[in-house]
Amino acid sequence: MLRCTRCGRTYPETFRMGCDCGGTLLVERDYYDFSGSLLPYLDIRRYLSFLPIGGNYLPPAIPAITPTASVQIGSVFALFKLDYLQPSGSFKDRGTWVTVAKLMEEGISEVVLDSSGNAALSMALYSPPAGIKAHVFVSYDTLPEKLSLLQRLGAIVHFVEGDRMAVHERAKEFAEREGLTYVSHWLNPYFIEGTKTAAFEVYEQVGVLDYVLVPTGSGTLFLGLWKGFKELEMMDEIAELPVFVAVQAAGYESLCNRSPVKNSLADGIAIPRPPRLGEMKRALKETNGLCVSVDETETRRALGWLKGAGFLVEPTSAVVLAAMWKLVETGEIAEGSRVLLPLTGSGLKLTEGI
Amino acid sequence: MLRCTRCGRTYPETFRMGCDCGGTLLVERDYYDFSGSLLPYLDIRRYLSFLPIGGNYLPPAIPAITPTASVQIGSVFALFKLDYLQPSGSFKDRGTWVTVAKLMEEGISEVVLDSSGNAALSMALYSPPAGIKAHVFVSYDTLPEKLSLLQRLGAIVHFVEGDRMAVHERAKEFAEREGLTYVSHWLNPYFIEGTKTAAFEVYEQVGVLDYVLVPTGSGTLFLGLWKGFKELEMMDEIAELPVFVAVQAAGYESLCNRSPVKNSLADGIAIPRPPRLGEMKRALKETNGLCVSVDETETRRALGWLKGAGFLVEPTSAVVLAAMWKLVETGEIAEGSRVLLPLTGSGLKLTEGI
Ligand SMILES: [Zn+2]
Ligand SMILES: [Zn+2]
Repeated sequence: MLRCTRCGRTYPETFRMGCDCGGTLLVERDYYDFSGSLLPYLDIRRYLSFLPIGGNYLPPAIPAITPTASVQIGSVFALFKLDYLQPSGSFKDRGTWVTVAKLMEEGISEVVLDSSGNAALSMALYSPPAGIKAHVFVSYDTLPEKLSLLQRLGAIVHFVEGDRMAVHERAKEFAEREGLTYVSHWLNPYFIEGTKTAAFEVYEQVGVLDYVLVPTGSGTLFLGLWKGFKELEMMDEIAELPVFVAVQAAGYESLCNRSPVKNSLADGIAIPRPPRLGEMKRALKETNGLCVSVDETETRRALGWLKGAGFLVEPTSAVVLAAMWKLVETGEIAEGSRVLLPLTGSGLKLTEGI
Repeated sequence: MLRCTRCGRTYPETFRMGCDCGGTLLVERDYYDFSGSLLPYLDIRRYLSFLPIGGNYLPPAIPAITPTASVQIGSVFALFKLDYLQPSGSFKDRGTWVTVAKLMEEGISEVVLDSSGNAALSMALYSPPAGIKAHVFVSYDTLPEKLSLLQRLGAIVHFVEGDRMAVHERAKEFAEREGLTYVSHWLNPYFIEGTKTAAFEVYEQVGVLDYVLVPTGSGTLFLGLWKGFKELEMMDEIAELPVFVAVQAAGYESLCNRSPVKNSLADGIAIPRPPRLGEMKRALKETNGLCVSVDETETRRALGWLKGAGFLVEPTSAVVLAAMWKLVETGEIAEGSRVLLPLTGSGLKLTEGI
């Protein structure tokens, strides 16, 4: 079922994007046995028992189990999860894959979403084979390389004047007016079911962690990882959650204090008022976590380091490394800690700036 | 040890690129137990027991186990291996990863290679973290997007006037003159050790196959897959090899008859005289295989189909689907067959033409 994160009311598992009270929804199911429920696949289907889809239709561009590479940096162990190695070049494919499978089961063939780029690219890649018509709302500020890819994928792109929040509003209005299903990852509970699989992978790959640093705008990956670890805790695989650190772009913070100067490199998390903010605050509190803000200079430096290490990612991905450096320096992250750094978007799609 | 594929002479496992007789070399080791030798990783390290490297230094950008997606096309089962989901956007990272690990073990810190693009990108990504200086020889015809990526990665690029064969000759001469180690994947036996892991994955993922269709220029993937399946046969996992089909670009055929009109889309396999030709001929004969030539129109059609299915690849990858269509139509591939179609290079790095 779906449960409201604010009032606790439950709903059946349909494409409902919010509670009547205005709260956001999450899928809620009970799981008892992790290793006994793993399926014999070496891709995301390994975790099908934990996903709210039947498996009759699964999109062919199956998300990969991405490698997690351990690199000692100073006194800590950075665990880089190469989650940009997905069909459309970002972790978003995990959520889109589950969403499209669920849409097919529900017989929904026309949807609306808004995106700063990667979620749109992902849906533009996954919707045609499923016969789903996807209206993609983006801002005029979207990176030209991402727009060009969207065009090559034949997406139905709607441009919106204004910031990322305006794009979100226009998309919701359009869906309502046209009677179409709105599936943006900001609100879509099935999307988070997809992103949670990254936590299962990390747990299988490297075991218990001390910290999880996540690029955090809308919170789709942050809450996905949090939900994945919560379910591992529910199944008695881990005794407690790792400490969650929300890493945000300067000037667009929703959890940290708002900086006066904007980080315009981290386009994927330039989201000043995410609807799942309350959930993120609870996750931070629950894990004794914190928020770190990263500026453009720090992002650029981390991006260069990552490139030199063989990780060709987009700037949004680099903020987690910059944040780790800061937290190690201030002593917030203790020596010997095991720190998860998910790398979320591929640098292959960018022609400059890396 | 290394063994000459022509005269059978053996050598120790160093960076030797050919036998004194002029023949090409392959690594030869005995393996007895497949499943018992798998390591508990969910990435290429799962197959470390089958690789000629010690594991003390492994490049951090670990190649992924890529998904294999089954799609019924007409009367056959196409098994698309998404091998473009690798750190530099092509299957080449498998070979580069093993090569760089071995170079580190040998204490080699400056190398020379030639490439039509993807192998160079791969080495440009993996060499800096290993502290290896890589001289990359390419033709002026290399796709501008790939050159731009090479530049962003800080590669030492040497441009050569002339075709792909001339690039190969200039690189070898340069290495000899400067006393540097030549490691081009055309000759490098460690590269093939990396690409063979794709066969192990496929076997774990989908079991026994009837046909393996491979984009075939230099034969690095063709021979890697062949060697992987040979080793599975040696370990009694499979009773016989699948039928190997070399898929070549029109106008650049080395195994099929040379077409008068060139397929200029499939840049990755535009290699008219590969040094491992004899080995490929033997593999075709041994598996009752054949060669199929694919022209530009066929490549473009297959590329469009793949994009529509959610596989965003570069044109070289598409030739295998075009070849499968032809072989199904002529009845060479029987109804109900299980056909492996490795998709080798990402479309994310191209800004047009897809
Ligand atoms: Zn509610
Ligand atoms: Zn010889």
